[in-house]
Amino acid sequence: MLTFYYAPGTCALAAHLALEYAGAPHEARRLDFKQSQQRSPEYLRVNPKGRVPALVTERGVLTETPALLHYIAQSFPQANLAPLDDAFLLAKVNEFNSYLCSTVHVNHAHKGRGYRWVEPEDTAALEAMKKKVPQTMAESFALIEEQMLKGPWVLGERFSTSDLYLYTLTRWLEGDGVEVKRFPKVADHMRRMEAQPQVQKIVALHQ
Amino acid sequence: MLTFYYAPGTCALAAHLALEYAGAPHEARRLDFKQSQQRSPEYLRVNPKGRVPALVTERGVLTETPALLHYIAQSFPQANLAPLDDAFLLAKVNEFNSYLCSTVHVNHAHKGRGYRWVEPEDTAALEAMKKKVPQTMAESFALIEEQMLKGPWVLGERFSTSDLYLYTLTRWLEGDGVEVKRFPKVADHMRRMEAQPQVQKIVALHQ
Repeated sequence: MLTFYYAPGTCALAAHLALEYAGAPHEARRLDFKQSQQRSPEYLRVNPKGRVPALVTERGVLTETPALLHYIAQSFPQANLAPLDDAFLLAKVNEFNSYLCSTVHVNHAHKGRGYRWVEPEDTAALEAMKKKVPQTMAESFALIEEQMLKGPWVLGERFSTSDLYLYTLTRWLEGDGVEVKRFPKVADHMRRMEAQPQVQKIVALHQ
Repeated sequence: MLTFYYAPGTCALAAHLALEYAGAPHEARRLDFKQSQQRSPEYLRVNPKGRVPALVTERGVLTETPALLHYIAQSFPQANLAPLDDAFLLAKVNEFNSYLCSTVHVNHAHKGRGYRWVEPEDTAALEAMKKKVPQTMAESFALIEEQMLKGPWVLGERFSTSDLYLYTLTRWLEGDGVEVKRFPKVADHMRRMEAQPQVQKIVALHQ
């Protein structure tokens, strides 16, 4: 039995969706970031990084969204969430997921978590970071729209973990000051995702 | 035949090492960042992100270090660079590589590439970012030292792509104002890597 830790509004939605699509038996535990539960001694024993997602398996704890997405795809191959036996196509999935975690998520984090990279008291620097987020997020999604998202799914006709992850970060766009409709393929992707019962079920848990 | 684009001082060293360890036939092409060759129209047709590494394969171009590391490991399985058939161990490799790309590399980038996240004219904000880099890099390497690097290799006795990637980012530490010797396991890991002929050969190309 897997135990999955998540919090609403975070990138943990992507791996949570993967568990649902995979039909992976799991218990989901919700953390309240407003009460700093991710910093509690109890949770830091699960994940010393103090972040979500974290997946507790029989062999130990796993973290980092791209790693969880691949782990779930590989552990539940019948769900066909990644082209595991095609090294090139799998690399396209990993490339996409890696771009989301190391560039898009990082852009977004400069809005509310700029204190990671400057002193928390430096309000001018924090404001400067926050101000650029609409631009960096729009630039990243322009690249996704024009170069990366083949449509209707990220890989084209084939659905994969990249779709779960893209949908998760697309949900942040409006809050980051960027209209989703600026990117027609991304907007269409979001609508397709939201039409799926698995997405509706898990998103309801993340309200 | 693979074509690999790299530049000295960048994270492209990790995938370059993987190609060497894998014995992958390839042509390596060096870009000069001081001449902004990564922004040339010619290179932007290869990689619209204007970054390295990029690996041109018969089926298309691949980017993002974690994706390249997995692709090389999967394409040249005899080199045994990743525990491909063990979903949990492979997830540990992916987790480690994902942490390096989305947290450690991002910390480092706030020293010289802060303009990605604030206006390039905002010298006060750029300085504020630069100032915190020794702290964020030290914190990340403390976590690696205490929680993630089993020793002698990242996974323990088993060598993997995570070792190539860790070595690549460890090389940035002194330049980021952090003494490697503060982290005895990391320092030992660096020494072991530098004793390997594959590392010596490829590092020489990155001078």
